[in-house]
Amino acid sequence: MSESHPHKTRTSVYEVAINFGDCDPAGIVFFPNFSKWMDAASLNYFVQCGIPVWRELVKTHGIVGTPLLEINTKFIKTATYGETIHIDTTITEWRAKTFTQRHIVRRGETVLCEGTEVRAFCMKDPDNADRIRAMPVPEFIKAACALSE
Amino acid sequence: MSESHPHKTRTSVYEVAINFGDCDPAGIVFFPNFSKWMDAASLNYFVQCGIPVWRELVKTHGIVGTPLLEINTKFIKTATYGETIHIDTTITEWRAKTFTQRHIVRRGETVLCEGTEVRAFCMKDPDNADRIRAMPVPEFIKAACALSE
Amino acid sequence: MSESHPHKTRTSVYEVAINFGDCDPAGIVFFPNFSKWMDAASLNYFVQCGIPVWRELVKTHGIVGTPLLEINTKFIKTATYGETIHIDTTITEWRAKTFTQRHIVRRGETVLCEGTEVRAFCMKDPDNADRIRAMPVPEFIKAACALSE
Amino acid sequence: MSESHPHKTRTSVYEVAINFGDCDPAGIVFFPNFSKWMDAASLNYFVQCGIPVWRELVKTHGIVGTPLLEINTKFIKTATYGETIHIDTTITEWRAKTFTQRHIVRRGETVLCEGTEVRAFCMKDPDNADRIRAMPVPEFIKAACALSE
Repeated sequence: MSESHPHKTRTSVYEVAINFGDCDPAGIVFFPNFSKWMDAASLNYFVQCGIPVWRELVKTHGIVGTPLLEINTKFIKTATYGETIHIDTTITEWRAKTFTQRHIVRRGETVLCEGTEVRAFCMKDPDNADRIRAMPVPEFIKAACALSE
Repeated sequence: MSESHPHKTRTSVYEVAINFGDCDPAGIVFFPNFSKWMDAASLNYFVQCGIPVWRELVKTHGIVGTPLLEINTKFIKTATYGETIHIDTTITEWRAKTFTQRHIVRRGETVLCEGTEVRAFCMKDPDNADRIRAMPVPEFIKAACALSE
Repeated sequence: MSESHPHKTRTSVYEVAINFGDCDPAGIVFFPNFSKWMDAASLNYFVQCGIPVWRELVKTHGIVGTPLLEINTKFIKTATYGETIHIDTTITEWRAKTFTQRHIVRRGETVLCEGTEVRAFCMKDPDNADRIRAMPVPEFIKAACALSE
Repeated sequence: MSESHPHKTRTSVYEVAINFGDCDPAGIVFFPNFSKWMDAASLNYFVQCGIPVWRELVKTHGIVGTPLLEINTKFIKTATYGETIHIDTTITEWRAKTFTQRHIVRRGETVLCEGTEVRAFCMKDPDNADRIRAMPVPEFIKAACALSE
């Protein structure tokens, strides 16, 4: 991996066909649906990188998922039902126990919204099965997401 | 209104009983539901200030709602079904065509997440009924939200 | 228990405040939300009868929930945001491994929709943790739901 | 059209990729999502038959949508995230002001659930813009859905 792009990661594309029920009385997408679709794009990213879904990873690595610590989203244009949109997802930063994922939601070339998510890989708390706790980002996951040179 | 609190606004409290279906396979609230509940708290804020719902305002003032321009949310603790939570909402800034609403989501005194929303009052675009456009924040709305001295 | 009411059960009332985001571009409640609220009313029914939520019952009795086998719903009148509605829930029949729950959704005295759900108490499949299977309706649950004479 | 199949209609196929957030704490699809997907399949059916979405039809024909009068759904097998499912949709009966749509939800050849929906084409009530009312099923819609011989 080149020094100039020390943490360059892959990009995935996730497609969403907007439904009638995704829209509100103003006739536009009810905004939390964009968060829901970014969440789907987040998991899809890892699947596209060849990582099994959480249901499998919990058995092999104890990983239950990647809960959110923070989201920042800008809504630029509205969308409505009958339209198909795409979400371009990448990872912009790996830290010890967290990472930042970036999503660009677009209809063709028109950007509808942009969001960043800070997430942590989590496991069941060994002291309390009802709780979860952050764990270091597994190396095999970073490797799977790296852009091959 | 006193000079020392030039834009002081009311605070509303919105209650949510968390349901089984609001939670994900990790057993915790699926995070976009927090965004959904903040949206409900946002409209509830105006209703608590004595402002009619959008369905009525569209007839009297052409206002179709307050779409989001930006959200920033920090997720601090998880929550699960069977719990009741509260959202404290206030307006922290009025600008010419936008305003910032702040939500503190808590279970008792424990803060679960904090979010700010930048929103704009919008009307149907007179040139295209399928589109909406931002309008200056109506003075009667600012007055209704002001904390009485 | 009297012979004339051999399976008489309690009735619970569940309240829902309809939100903007629960409604669709026609301005009315997006109908799957009625199913979602009936599901919440279903769990609320057992909680009102003094039964712990599934998260606790899975530890003490292995019960993971009451998945649906069948629903039948009639939609009579529409509802919209800003309205508060109530759901009256009761159990109309206990069978060996299933039971029927009935929900009346009303706005004041006006019935909006009526639904029956056939559900089964389920446990994790001991042979495959990814699957669940129906179990006989536990006697302590039937007793908790019975109308005291 | 042949006499032996007096009301034979087309069949459409709708694809759904199940997301993490579509599943509940039992790890399976939260059942109202099946209703939501059948609703999407219902509109998709008409679009596949060449009929414009409601947003356009309201301008040309005053049609705001096809609200539900009744649903009957049988849940046969569960599904979970990471799986892709398909919904086969057809119209089994046209009546004066209502019609019945049938949906088979399957994962490959395995049927997960089956549902029928009774719906009505609706227009804004000319006497009250906040209400909608059923209208006769438009002939051009029946023609568009007919299976060509």
